[in-house]
Amino acid sequence: MEVYHTIAEIRNFVREQKITGNSVGFVPTMGYLHQGHLTLMEEARKENDIVVVSIFVNPTQFGPDEDYGEYPRDLSRDVELATGVGVDVVFSPQTEEIYLPNSATTVEVEGLTNHLCGATREGHFTGVCTIVSKLFNIINPDRAYFGQKDAQQVLVIKRMVKDLNFDIDIVTVPIVREKDGLAISSRNKYLGQDEREAALVLYQALQIAQNLIGSGERDRDIIKQQLVERIDREPLAEIDYVDIVNQNNLEEAEEIKGEILIALAVYIGKTRLIDNLMLEVDK
Amino acid sequence: MEVYHTIAEIRNFVREQKITGNSVGFVPTMGYLHQGHLTLMEEARKENDIVVVSIFVNPTQFGPDEDYGEYPRDLSRDVELATGVGVDVVFSPQTEEIYLPNSATTVEVEGLTNHLCGATREGHFTGVCTIVSKLFNIINPDRAYFGQKDAQQVLVIKRMVKDLNFDIDIVTVPIVREKDGLAISSRNKYLGQDEREAALVLYQALQIAQNLIGSGERDRDIIKQQLVERIDREPLAEIDYVDIVNQNNLEEAEEIKGEILIALAVYIGKTRLIDNLMLEVDK
Repeated sequence: MEVYHTIAEIRNFVREQKITGNSVGFVPTMGYLHQGHLTLMEEARKENDIVVVSIFVNPTQFGPDEDYGEYPRDLSRDVELATGVGVDVVFSPQTEEIYLPNSATTVEVEGLTNHLCGATREGHFTGVCTIVSKLFNIINPDRAYFGQKDAQQVLVIKRMVKDLNFDIDIVTVPIVREKDGLAISSRNKYLGQDEREAALVLYQALQIAQNLIGSGERDRDIIKQQLVERIDREPLAEIDYVDIVNQNNLEEAEEIKGEILIALAVYIGKTRLIDNLMLEVDK
Repeated sequence: MEVYHTIAEIRNFVREQKITGNSVGFVPTMGYLHQGHLTLMEEARKENDIVVVSIFVNPTQFGPDEDYGEYPRDLSRDVELATGVGVDVVFSPQTEEIYLPNSATTVEVEGLTNHLCGATREGHFTGVCTIVSKLFNIINPDRAYFGQKDAQQVLVIKRMVKDLNFDIDIVTVPIVREKDGLAISSRNKYLGQDEREAALVLYQALQIAQNLIGSGERDRDIIKQQLVERIDREPLAEIDYVDIVNQNNLEEAEEIKGEILIALAVYIGKTRLIDNLMLEVDK
Protein backbone atom coordinates (compact mmCIF):
# COMPACT_ATOMS: atom_id res chain seq x y z
CA MET A 1 0.00 0.00 0.00
CA GLU A 2 1.36 3.36 -1.08
CA VAL A 3 0.39 6.85 0.10
CA TYR A 4 0.99 9.60 -2.43
CA HIS A 5 0.71 13.31 -1.72
CA THR A 6 1.47 14.79 -5.13
CA ILE A 7 -0.35 14.74 -8.45
CA ALA A 8 2.86 13.73 -10.25
CA GLU A 9 3.26 10.61 -8.10
CA ILE A 10 -0.29 9.33 -8.47
CA ARG A 11 -0.24 10.08 -12.21
CA ASN A 12 2.96 8.10 -12.71
CA PHE A 13 1.53 5.22 -10.74
CA VAL A 14 -1.72 5.09 -12.73
CA ARG A 15 0.09 5.53 -16.05
CA GLU A 16 2.24 2.48 -15.33
CA GLN A 17 -0.81 0.45 -14.37
CA LYS A 18 -2.63 1.42 -17.55
CA ILE A 19 0.35 0.48 -19.73
CA THR A 20 0.25 -3.03 -18.31
CA GLY A 21 -3.48 -3.18 -19.05
CA ASN A 22 -4.65 -2.97 -15.43
CA SER A 23 -8.07 -1.46 -14.74
CA VAL A 24 -8.33 1.24 -12.07
CA GLY A 25 -11.22 1.68 -9.62
CA PHE A 26 -11.42 4.98 -7.77
CA VAL A 27 -13.14 5.88 -4.51
CA PRO A 28 -13.10 9.63 -3.78
CA THR A 29 -13.53 10.40 -0.07
CA MET A 30 -13.04 13.19 2.42
CA GLY A 31 -11.42 10.69 4.80
CA TYR A 32 -12.34 9.75 8.37
CA LEU A 33 -13.34 6.48 6.78
CA HIS A 34 -16.28 4.44 8.03
CA GLN A 35 -18.03 1.26 6.94
CA GLY A 36 -19.84 3.19 4.18
CA HIS A 37 -16.54 4.13 2.56
CA LEU A 38 -15.07 0.67 3.15
CA THR A 39 -18.03 -0.91 1.37
CA LEU A 40 -17.28 1.29 -1.66
CA MET A 41 -13.67 0.12 -1.55
CA GLU A 42 -14.70 -3.52 -1.25
CA GLU A 43 -16.88 -3.11 -4.34
CA ALA A 44 -14.01 -1.44 -6.20
CA ARG A 45 -11.69 -4.26 -5.08
CA LYS A 46 -13.98 -6.87 -6.67
CA GLU A 47 -14.24 -5.12 -10.03
CA ASN A 48 -10.76 -3.67 -10.72
CA ASP A 49 -7.11 -4.68 -10.82
CA ILE A 50 -6.08 -1.60 -8.87
CA VAL A 51 -8.00 0.42 -6.27
CA VAL A 52 -7.14 4.08 -5.64
CA VAL A 53 -8.74 6.03 -2.77
CA SER A 54 -8.44 9.80 -2.47
CA ILE A 55 -8.63 11.46 0.91
CA PHE A 56 -9.15 15.19 0.55
CA VAL A 57 -11.39 17.47 2.57
CA ASN A 58 -12.44 19.74 -0.27
CA PRO A 59 -12.87 23.32 0.95
CA THR A 60 -14.90 24.50 -2.06
CA GLN A 61 -17.88 22.28 -1.26
CA PHE A 62 -18.36 23.73 2.23
CA GLY A 63 -20.39 26.88 2.78
CA PRO A 64 -18.96 29.72 4.88
CA ASP A 65 -21.00 28.63 7.92
CA GLU A 66 -20.34 24.94 7.49
CA ASP A 67 -17.95 22.56 9.24
CA TYR A 68 -14.86 22.64 6.98
CA GLY A 69 -12.58 23.55 9.90
CA GLU A 70 -13.93 20.91 12.29
CA TYR A 71 -14.45 18.19 9.71
CA PRO A 72 -12.75 15.13 11.30
CA ARG A 73 -9.36 14.09 9.87
CA ASP A 74 -7.18 11.08 10.75
CA LEU A 75 -4.91 9.96 7.92
CA SER A 76 -3.01 7.20 9.69
CA ARG A 77 -6.22 5.54 10.84
CA ASP A 78 -7.67 5.94 7.31
CA VAL A 79 -4.59 4.35 5.73
CA GLU A 80 -4.89 1.40 8.11
CA LEU A 81 -8.57 0.90 7.31
CA ALA A 82 -7.99 1.19 3.57
CA THR A 83 -5.13 -1.30 3.78
CA GLY A 84 -7.49 -3.70 5.55
CA VAL A 85 -9.83 -3.84 2.56
CA GLY A 86 -7.05 -4.23 0.00
CA VAL A 87 -6.71 -0.68 -1.35
CA ASP A 88 -3.52 -0.25 -3.40
CA VAL A 89 -2.96 3.49 -3.17
CA VAL A 90 -4.19 6.37 -1.03
CA PHE A 91 -3.90 9.80 -2.67
CA SER A 92 -3.86 12.40 0.09
CA PRO A 93 -2.85 15.81 -1.27
CA GLN A 94 -2.50 19.10 0.57
CA THR A 95 -5.01 21.79 -0.35
CA GLU A 96 -2.28 23.78 -2.17
CA GLU A 97 -1.48 20.79 -4.36
CA ILE A 98 -5.07 20.75 -5.59
CA TYR A 99 -6.00 24.44 -5.75
CA LEU A 100 -3.48 26.80 -7.35
CA PRO A 101 -3.53 30.42 -6.14
CA ASN A 102 -5.06 31.74 -9.39
CA SER A 103 -7.51 28.90 -9.91
CA ALA A 104 -10.68 30.21 -11.52
CA THR A 105 -12.44 27.26 -13.15
CA THR A 106 -15.65 25.65 -11.96
CA VAL A 107 -17.87 22.86 -13.22
CA GLU A 108 -21.56 23.34 -12.73
CA VAL A 109 -24.64 21.18 -13.28
CA GLU A 110 -27.80 23.21 -13.61
CA GLY A 111 -31.30 22.10 -12.73
CA LEU A 112 -30.56 19.02 -10.62
CA THR A 113 -28.63 21.16 -8.18
CA ASN A 114 -31.46 23.59 -7.40
CA HIS A 115 -33.34 21.02 -5.32
CA LEU A 116 -32.82 19.21 -1.99
CA CYS A 117 -29.34 19.90 -0.58
CA GLY A 118 -28.59 22.26 -3.47
CA ALA A 119 -31.38 24.59 -2.38
CA THR A 120 -29.92 25.15 1.10
CA ARG A 121 -26.20 24.58 0.45
CA GLU A 122 -25.32 27.27 -2.06
CA GLY A 123 -22.30 26.42 -4.20
CA HIS A 124 -21.98 22.96 -2.64
CA PHE A 125 -22.50 21.00 -5.84
CA THR A 126 -20.32 23.31 -7.90
CA GLY A 127 -17.58 22.53 -5.38
CA VAL A 128 -18.33 18.80 -5.65
CA CYS A 129 -18.43 18.76 -9.46
CA THR A 130 -15.23 20.77 -9.72
CA ILE A 131 -13.21 18.59 -7.34
CA VAL A 132 -14.57 15.37 -8.83
CA SER A 133 -13.66 16.58 -12.35
CA LYS A 134 -10.16 17.39 -11.14
CA LEU A 135 -9.75 14.03 -9.40
CA PHE A 136 -11.08 12.20 -12.46
CA ASN A 137 -8.48 13.97 -14.60
CA ILE A 138 -5.72 13.26 -12.09
CA ILE A 139 -6.54 9.59 -11.41
CA ASN A 140 -7.95 8.66 -14.85
CA PRO A 141 -9.95 5.70 -13.48
CA ASP A 142 -12.04 3.16 -15.37
CA ARG A 143 -14.71 3.13 -12.64
CA ALA A 144 -15.57 5.47 -9.77
CA TYR A 145 -17.63 4.53 -6.70
CA PHE A 146 -20.16 6.69 -4.90
CA GLY A 147 -22.48 5.96 -1.98
CA GLN A 148 -26.23 6.07 -2.45
CA LYS A 149 -26.47 7.96 0.83
CA ASP A 150 -25.56 11.13 -1.04
CA ALA A 151 -28.38 10.48 -3.50
CA GLN A 152 -28.38 13.91 -5.08
CA GLN A 153 -24.60 13.86 -5.41
CA VAL A 154 -24.81 10.55 -7.29
CA LEU A 155 -27.40 11.92 -9.71
CA VAL A 156 -25.44 15.14 -10.25
CA ILE A 157 -22.16 13.29 -10.84
CA LYS A 158 -23.83 10.89 -13.28
CA ARG A 159 -25.26 13.86 -15.19
CA MET A 160 -21.86 15.58 -15.25
CA VAL A 161 -20.07 12.43 -16.46
CA LYS A 162 -22.55 12.07 -19.32
CA ASP A 163 -22.50 15.76 -20.23
CA LEU A 164 -18.71 16.19 -20.17
CA ASN A 165 -18.10 12.76 -21.78
CA PHE A 166 -15.89 11.40 -19.03
CA ASP A 167 -15.01 7.84 -20.09
CA ILE A 168 -15.69 6.50 -16.58
CA ASP A 169 -18.34 4.12 -15.23
CA ILE A 170 -20.07 5.50 -12.15
CA VAL A 171 -20.94 2.71 -9.73
CA THR A 172 -23.44 3.36 -6.94
CA VAL A 173 -23.36 1.39 -3.69
CA PRO A 174 -26.38 1.13 -1.31
CA ILE A 175 -26.55 2.96 2.00
CA VAL A 176 -24.73 1.22 4.86
CA ARG A 177 -26.57 1.47 8.20
CA GLU A 178 -25.82 0.86 11.85
CA LYS A 179 -27.71 -2.07 13.41
CA ASP A 180 -30.48 0.25 14.57
CA GLY A 181 -30.86 1.79 11.10
CA LEU A 182 -28.92 5.06 11.35
CA ALA A 183 -27.17 5.73 8.04
CA ILE A 184 -23.42 5.68 8.62
CA SER A 185 -21.82 9.12 8.19
CA SER A 186 -18.61 10.85 9.21
CA ARG A 187 -20.77 13.49 10.85
CA ASN A 188 -22.35 10.96 13.25
CA LYS A 189 -19.31 11.46 15.45
CA TYR A 190 -20.54 14.97 16.27
CA LEU A 191 -23.61 13.48 18.00
CA GLY A 192 -23.86 13.35 21.79
CA GLN A 193 -25.55 10.33 23.36
CA ASP A 194 -29.07 11.82 23.36
CA GLU A 195 -28.55 13.11 19.86
CA ARG A 196 -27.39 9.71 18.67
CA GLU A 197 -30.70 8.30 19.81
CA ALA A 198 -32.68 11.17 18.35
CA ALA A 199 -30.88 10.73 15.00
CA LEU A 200 -32.76 7.47 14.49
CA VAL A 201 -35.77 9.58 13.58
CA LEU A 202 -34.52 9.95 9.98
CA TYR A 203 -34.59 6.22 9.34
CA GLN A 204 -37.84 5.78 11.22
CA ALA A 205 -39.54 8.48 9.17
CA LEU A 206 -38.34 6.87 5.93
CA GLN A 207 -39.71 3.52 7.11
CA ILE A 208 -43.10 5.09 7.77
CA ALA A 209 -43.11 6.40 4.20
CA GLN A 210 -42.04 3.05 2.80
CA ASN A 211 -44.76 1.23 4.74
CA LEU A 212 -47.41 3.71 3.63
CA ILE A 213 -46.44 3.30 -0.01
CA GLY A 214 -46.18 -0.47 0.46
CA SER A 215 -49.75 -0.55 1.75
CA GLY A 216 -51.00 1.37 -1.28
CA GLU A 217 -50.94 5.02 -0.21
CA ARG A 218 -50.21 7.22 -3.26
CA ASP A 219 -51.06 10.68 -1.95
CA ARG A 220 -47.81 12.58 -1.80
CA ASP A 221 -49.08 15.15 0.69
CA ILE A 222 -50.32 12.51 3.14
CA ILE A 223 -47.01 10.65 2.99
CA LYS A 224 -45.01 13.82 3.40
CA GLN A 225 -47.16 14.98 6.30
CA GLN A 226 -46.61 11.71 8.16
CA LEU A 227 -42.86 11.98 7.59
CA VAL A 228 -42.80 15.52 8.88
CA GLU A 229 -44.96 14.69 11.89
CA ARG A 230 -42.69 11.83 12.92
CA ILE A 231 -39.61 14.05 12.77
CA ASP A 232 -41.35 16.93 14.53
CA ARG A 233 -42.16 14.66 17.49
CA GLU A 234 -38.41 14.42 18.16
CA PRO A 235 -37.45 17.51 20.21
CA LEU A 236 -33.77 17.45 19.18
CA ALA A 237 -34.62 17.29 15.48
CA GLU A 238 -35.20 20.24 13.18
CA ILE A 239 -36.10 19.66 9.55
CA ASP A 240 -33.95 21.23 6.82
CA TYR A 241 -35.99 19.59 4.07
CA VAL A 242 -38.28 16.62 3.51
CA ASP A 243 -38.92 15.96 -0.17
CA ILE A 244 -40.52 13.37 -2.38
CA VAL A 245 -39.12 13.84 -5.88
CA ASN A 246 -38.59 12.14 -9.21
CA GLN A 247 -35.14 10.59 -9.43
CA ASN A 248 -34.63 11.91 -12.95
CA ASN A 249 -34.99 15.62 -12.42
CA LEU A 250 -35.33 15.92 -8.60
CA GLU A 251 -38.51 17.90 -9.06
CA GLU A 252 -41.44 17.33 -6.70
CA ALA A 253 -43.18 14.12 -7.64
CA GLU A 254 -46.74 15.01 -8.58
CA GLU A 255 -47.63 11.32 -8.50
CA ILE A 256 -46.03 8.56 -6.42
CA LYS A 257 -45.12 6.51 -9.47
CA GLY A 258 -41.98 5.38 -11.27
CA GLU A 259 -38.52 6.13 -9.86
CA ILE A 260 -39.09 8.04 -6.65
CA LEU A 261 -36.58 9.51 -4.21
CA ILE A 262 -37.62 10.36 -0.66
CA ALA A 263 -34.90 12.56 0.76
CA LEU A 264 -34.39 14.10 4.18
CA ALA A 265 -32.01 16.58 5.71
CA VAL A 266 -32.49 17.06 9.43
CA TYR A 267 -30.52 18.92 12.05
CA ILE A 268 -29.97 16.90 15.20
CA GLY A 269 -28.75 19.60 17.52
CA LYS A 270 -26.12 21.34 15.40
CA THR A 271 -25.37 18.34 13.21
CA ARG A 272 -27.01 18.16 9.81
CA LEU A 273 -27.75 14.58 8.76
CA ILE A 274 -29.15 13.27 5.50
CA ASP A 275 -30.84 10.03 4.57
CA ASN A 276 -32.95 8.81 1.70
CA LEU A 277 -34.94 6.02 0.17
CA MET A 278 -35.11 5.17 -3.51
CA LEU A 279 -38.23 3.38 -4.66
CA GLU A 280 -39.51 2.03 -7.92
CA VAL A 281 -43.29 2.40 -7.57
CA ASP A 282 -45.26 0.41 -10.15
CA LYS A 283 -48.71 1.80 -9.59
CA MET B 1 -7.56 9.04 -43.46
CA GLU B 2 -10.74 8.17 -41.55
CA VAL B 3 -13.79 10.32 -40.87
CA TYR B 4 -15.71 9.37 -37.73
CA HIS B 5 -19.08 10.76 -36.75
CA THR B 6 -19.68 9.02 -33.42
CA ILE B 7 -17.99 9.27 -30.04
CA ALA B 8 -17.76 5.47 -29.84
CA GLU B 9 -15.77 5.28 -33.09
CA ILE B 10 -13.22 7.96 -32.25
CA ARG B 11 -12.81 6.55 -28.72
CA ASN B 12 -12.09 3.07 -30.04
CA PHE B 13 -9.60 4.47 -32.50
CA VAL B 14 -7.71 6.50 -29.88
CA ARG B 15 -7.80 3.64 -27.37
CA GLU B 16 -6.09 1.33 -29.85
CA GLN B 17 -3.47 3.96 -30.62
CA LYS B 18 -2.73 4.48 -26.94
CA ILE B 19 -2.36 0.74 -26.31
CA THR B 20 0.35 0.59 -28.96
CA GLY B 21 2.09 3.55 -27.30
CA ASN B 22 1.27 6.12 -29.98
CA SER B 23 0.98 9.76 -28.96
CA VAL B 24 -2.09 11.71 -30.08
CA GLY B 25 -2.13 15.36 -31.15
CA PHE B 26 -5.52 17.06 -31.35
CA VAL B 27 -6.64 20.13 -33.29
CA PRO B 28 -10.19 21.26 -32.40
CA THR B 29 -11.78 23.34 -35.16
CA MET B 30 -15.16 24.57 -36.33
CA GLY B 31 -14.25 23.53 -39.87
CA TYR B 32 -14.12 25.58 -43.06
CA LEU B 33 -10.39 25.08 -42.75
CA HIS B 34 -7.88 27.71 -43.79
CA GLN B 35 -4.13 28.08 -43.62
CA GLY B 36 -4.36 29.00 -39.93
CA HIS B 37 -5.91 25.62 -39.11
CA LEU B 38 -3.57 23.79 -41.46
CA THR B 39 -0.58 25.30 -39.70
CA LEU B 40 -1.90 23.90 -36.41
CA MET B 41 -2.22 20.48 -38.05
CA GLU B 42 1.29 20.69 -39.48
CA GLU B 43 2.61 21.44 -36.01
CA ALA B 44 0.63 18.53 -34.57
CA ARG B 45 1.96 16.29 -37.38
CA LYS B 46 5.56 17.05 -36.38
CA GLU B 47 5.10 16.29 -32.70
CA ASN B 48 2.74 13.29 -32.54
CA ASP B 49 2.34 9.79 -33.93
CA ILE B 50 -1.33 10.38 -34.68
CA VAL B 51 -3.18 13.62 -35.52
CA VAL B 52 -6.91 13.96 -34.82
CA VAL B 53 -8.89 16.98 -36.03
CA SER B 54 -12.41 17.71 -34.83
CA ILE B 55 -14.81 19.66 -37.03
CA PHE B 56 -17.81 20.83 -35.04
CA VAL B 57 -19.59 24.15 -35.19
CA ASN B 58 -20.39 24.43 -31.49
CA PRO B 59 -23.75 26.13 -30.96
CA THR B 60 -23.15 26.96 -27.28
CA GLN B 61 -20.35 29.40 -27.99
CA PHE B 62 -22.48 31.59 -30.29
CA GLY B 63 -24.70 34.31 -28.86
CA PRO B 64 -28.35 34.57 -29.95
CA ASP B 65 -27.53 37.38 -32.41
CA GLU B 66 -24.36 35.77 -33.75
CA ASP B 67 -23.66 33.83 -36.93
CA TYR B 68 -24.20 30.20 -35.87
CA GLY B 69 -26.67 29.59 -38.69
CA GLU B 70 -24.55 31.16 -41.43
CA TYR B 71 -21.19 29.93 -40.15
CA PRO B 72 -19.57 28.39 -43.27
CA ARG B 73 -19.49 24.58 -43.48
CA ASP B 74 -17.88 22.32 -46.11
CA LEU B 75 -16.89 18.91 -44.79
CA SER B 76 -15.66 17.31 -48.02
CA ARG B 77 -13.36 20.26 -48.74
CA ASP B 78 -12.16 20.16 -45.11
CA VAL B 79 -11.40 16.44 -45.28
CA GLU B 80 -9.39 17.00 -48.44
CA LEU B 81 -7.37 19.81 -46.89
CA ALA B 82 -6.76 17.82 -43.70
CA THR B 83 -5.65 14.81 -45.74
CA GLY B 84 -3.20 17.07 -47.54
CA VAL B 85 -1.32 17.89 -44.34
CA GLY B 86 -1.26 14.30 -43.11
CA VAL B 87 -4.12 14.25 -40.59
CA ASP B 88 -5.07 10.68 -39.60
CA VAL B 89 -8.65 11.15 -38.42
CA VAL B 90 -11.35 13.77 -38.73
CA PHE B 91 -14.01 13.63 -36.01
CA SER B 92 -17.13 15.33 -37.34
CA PRO B 93 -20.12 14.66 -35.07
CA GLN B 94 -23.69 15.85 -35.41
CA THR B 95 -24.88 18.30 -32.76
CA GLU B 96 -27.11 15.61 -31.19
CA GLU B 97 -24.11 13.32 -30.76
CA ILE B 98 -22.40 15.98 -28.66
CA TYR B 99 -25.28 17.56 -26.72
CA LEU B 100 -27.81 15.22 -25.13
CA PRO B 101 -31.33 16.60 -24.69
CA ASN B 102 -31.00 16.92 -20.88
CA SER B 103 -27.45 18.22 -20.87
CA ALA B 104 -26.98 20.65 -18.01
CA THR B 105 -23.25 20.87 -17.29
CA THR B 106 -21.00 23.84 -18.03
CA VAL B 107 -17.35 24.63 -17.43
CA GLU B 108 -16.57 28.20 -16.57
CA VAL B 109 -13.39 30.20 -16.08
CA GLU B 110 -13.92 33.32 -14.02
CA GLY B 111 -11.93 36.53 -14.22
CA LEU B 112 -10.10 36.01 -17.52
CA THR B 113 -13.42 35.80 -19.33
CA ASN B 114 -14.74 39.18 -18.16
CA HIS B 115 -12.40 41.08 -20.46
CA LEU B 116 -11.96 41.58 -24.23
CA CYS B 117 -14.26 39.24 -26.19
CA GLY B 118 -15.78 37.93 -22.96
CA ALA B 119 -17.12 41.39 -22.12
CA THR B 120 -19.17 41.66 -25.31
CA ARG B 121 -19.86 37.98 -26.10
CA GLU B 122 -21.82 36.78 -23.07
CA GLY B 123 -21.53 33.06 -22.46
CA HIS B 124 -19.05 32.62 -25.32
CA PHE B 125 -16.18 31.31 -23.21
CA THR B 126 -18.43 29.08 -21.12
CA GLY B 127 -19.47 27.50 -24.43
CA VAL B 128 -15.83 27.20 -25.50
CA CYS B 129 -14.63 25.72 -22.19
CA THR B 130 -17.51 23.24 -22.08
CA ILE B 131 -17.01 21.94 -25.63
CA VAL B 132 -13.23 21.80 -25.25
CA SER B 133 -13.60 19.83 -21.99
CA LYS B 134 -15.96 17.43 -23.74
CA LEU B 135 -13.64 17.01 -26.73
CA PHE B 136 -10.64 16.50 -24.44
CA ASN B 137 -12.53 13.73 -22.64
CA ILE B 138 -13.65 12.16 -25.91
CA ILE B 139 -10.30 12.33 -27.75
CA ASN B 140 -7.95 11.96 -24.77
CA PRO B 141 -5.01 13.59 -26.56
CA ASP B 142 -1.45 14.09 -25.35
CA ARG B 143 -1.25 17.55 -26.91
CA ALA B 144 -3.84 20.02 -28.20
CA TYR B 145 -3.16 22.87 -30.62
CA PHE B 146 -4.67 26.35 -30.55
CA GLY B 147 -4.03 29.41 -32.67
CA GLN B 148 -2.62 32.56 -31.13
CA LYS B 149 -5.16 34.55 -33.12
CA ASP B 150 -7.74 33.70 -30.48
CA ALA B 151 -5.43 35.02 -27.79
CA GLN B 152 -8.00 35.18 -25.02
CA GLN B 153 -9.22 31.69 -25.87
CA VAL B 154 -5.68 30.35 -25.54
CA LEU B 155 -5.24 31.96 -22.13
CA VAL B 156 -8.65 30.76 -20.93
CA ILE B 157 -8.02 27.19 -22.15
CA LYS B 158 -4.59 27.11 -20.52
CA ARG B 159 -6.14 28.29 -17.24
CA MET B 160 -8.87 25.64 -17.49
CA VAL B 161 -6.39 22.86 -18.25
CA LYS B 162 -4.32 23.79 -15.19
CA ASP B 163 -7.33 24.21 -12.92
CA LEU B 164 -9.11 21.00 -13.92
CA ASN B 165 -5.84 19.02 -14.10
CA PHE B 166 -6.25 17.87 -17.68
CA ASP B 167 -3.12 15.84 -18.49
CA ILE B 168 -2.72 17.57 -21.86
CA ASP B 169 -0.05 19.92 -23.21
CA ILE B 170 -1.53 23.02 -24.80
CA VAL B 171 0.55 24.14 -27.78
CA THR B 172 0.08 27.65 -29.18
CA VAL B 173 0.84 28.46 -32.81
CA PRO B 174 1.48 32.03 -34.08
CA ILE B 175 -1.05 33.96 -36.14
CA VAL B 176 -1.00 33.13 -39.86
CA ARG B 177 -1.53 36.18 -42.10
CA GLU B 178 -2.34 36.88 -45.71
CA LYS B 179 0.49 38.52 -47.68
CA ASP B 180 -0.89 41.97 -46.92
CA GLY B 181 -1.10 41.22 -43.18
CA LEU B 182 -4.76 40.36 -42.65
CA ALA B 183 -5.03 37.61 -40.05
CA ILE B 184 -6.54 34.52 -41.68
CA SER B 185 -10.02 33.74 -40.38
CA SER B 186 -13.04 31.71 -41.50
CA ARG B 187 -15.06 34.90 -41.20
CA ASN B 188 -12.92 36.70 -43.84
CA LYS B 189 -15.15 35.04 -46.45
CA TYR B 190 -18.02 37.28 -45.33
CA LEU B 191 -16.08 40.33 -46.53
CA GLY B 192 -16.99 42.10 -49.75
CA GLN B 193 -14.16 43.56 -51.85
CA ASP B 194 -14.19 47.00 -50.21
CA GLU B 195 -14.50 45.39 -46.81
CA ARG B 196 -11.57 43.09 -47.51
CA GLU B 197 -9.43 46.17 -48.09
CA ALA B 198 -10.84 47.97 -45.07
CA ALA B 199 -10.12 44.91 -42.91
CA LEU B 200 -6.40 45.60 -43.23
CA VAL B 201 -6.90 48.35 -40.69
CA LEU B 202 -6.64 45.85 -37.81
CA TYR B 203 -3.13 44.81 -38.76
CA GLN B 204 -2.09 48.36 -39.60
CA ALA B 205 -3.27 49.63 -36.22
CA LEU B 206 -1.34 46.85 -34.44
CA GLN B 207 1.78 47.78 -36.41
CA ILE B 208 1.44 51.40 -35.34
CA ALA B 209 1.32 50.23 -31.72
CA GLN B 210 4.31 47.94 -32.20
CA ASN B 211 6.34 50.72 -33.80
CA LEU B 212 5.43 53.17 -31.03
CA ILE B 213 6.51 50.72 -28.35
CA GLY B 214 9.60 49.82 -30.38
CA SER B 215 10.60 53.48 -30.46
CA GLY B 216 10.25 53.76 -26.70
CA GLU B 217 6.69 54.98 -26.15
CA ARG B 218 5.37 53.61 -22.83
CA ASP B 219 2.23 55.68 -22.30
CA ARG B 220 -0.68 53.32 -22.63
CA ASP B 221 -3.20 56.06 -23.35
CA ILE B 222 -1.14 57.56 -26.17
CA ILE B 223 -0.64 54.15 -27.79
CA LYS B 224 -4.30 53.28 -27.43
CA GLN B 225 -5.36 56.65 -28.83
CA GLN B 226 -3.23 56.18 -31.95
CA LEU B 227 -4.67 52.70 -32.45
CA VAL B 228 -8.21 54.00 -32.13
CA GLU B 229 -7.55 56.95 -34.43
CA ARG B 230 -6.16 54.72 -37.15
CA ILE B 231 -9.20 52.46 -37.04
CA ASP B 232 -11.62 55.37 -36.87
CA ARG B 233 -10.17 56.77 -40.10
CA GLU B 234 -11.53 53.70 -41.90
CA PRO B 235 -15.23 54.41 -42.69
CA LEU B 236 -16.22 50.71 -42.92
CA ALA B 237 -14.68 49.90 -39.53
CA GLU B 238 -16.40 50.12 -36.17
CA ILE B 239 -14.50 49.29 -33.01
CA ASP B 240 -15.88 46.66 -30.66
CA TYR B 241 -12.88 46.96 -28.35
CA VAL B 242 -9.25 48.06 -28.38
CA ASP B 243 -7.37 46.95 -25.29
CA ILE B 244 -3.86 46.84 -23.96
CA VAL B 245 -3.77 44.28 -21.16
CA ASN B 246 -1.49 42.06 -19.14
CA GLN B 247 -1.34 38.56 -20.61
CA ASN B 248 -1.65 36.96 -17.19
CA ASN B 249 -4.96 38.36 -16.04
CA LEU B 250 -6.20 40.30 -19.09
CA GLU B 251 -6.65 43.37 -16.95
CA GLU B 252 -5.77 46.80 -18.35
CA ALA B 253 -2.00 47.19 -18.33
CA GLU B 254 -1.21 50.15 -16.09
CA GLU B 255 2.34 50.09 -17.40
CA ILE B 256 3.59 48.92 -20.78
CA LYS B 257 5.95 46.37 -19.25
CA GLY B 258 6.32 42.61 -19.11
CA GLU B 259 3.97 40.34 -21.04
CA ILE B 260 1.56 42.60 -22.85
CA LEU B 261 -1.35 41.73 -25.13
CA ILE B 262 -2.76 44.30 -27.53
CA ALA B 263 -6.11 42.99 -28.67
CA LEU B 264 -8.66 44.33 -31.15
CA ALA B 265 -12.16 43.41 -32.17
CA VAL B 266 -13.50 45.48 -35.04
CA TYR B 267 -16.62 45.24 -37.12
CA ILE B 268 -15.95 45.58 -40.84
CA GLY B 269 -19.47 46.07 -42.09
CA LYS B 270 -21.37 43.30 -40.32
CA THR B 271 -18.34 41.05 -39.90
CA ARG B 272 -16.59 41.04 -36.56
CA LEU B 273 -12.86 40.44 -36.88
CA ILE B 274 -10.22 40.05 -34.19
CA ASP B 275 -6.48 40.42 -34.20
CA ASN B 276 -3.78 40.80 -31.59
CA LEU B 277 -0.15 41.29 -30.82
CA MET B 278 1.74 39.73 -27.94
CA LEU B 279 4.80 41.58 -26.74
CA GLU B 280 7.41 41.06 -24.10
CA VAL B 281 8.35 44.61 -23.12
CA ASP B 282 11.58 44.82 -21.12
CA LYS B 283 11.46 48.42 -20.02
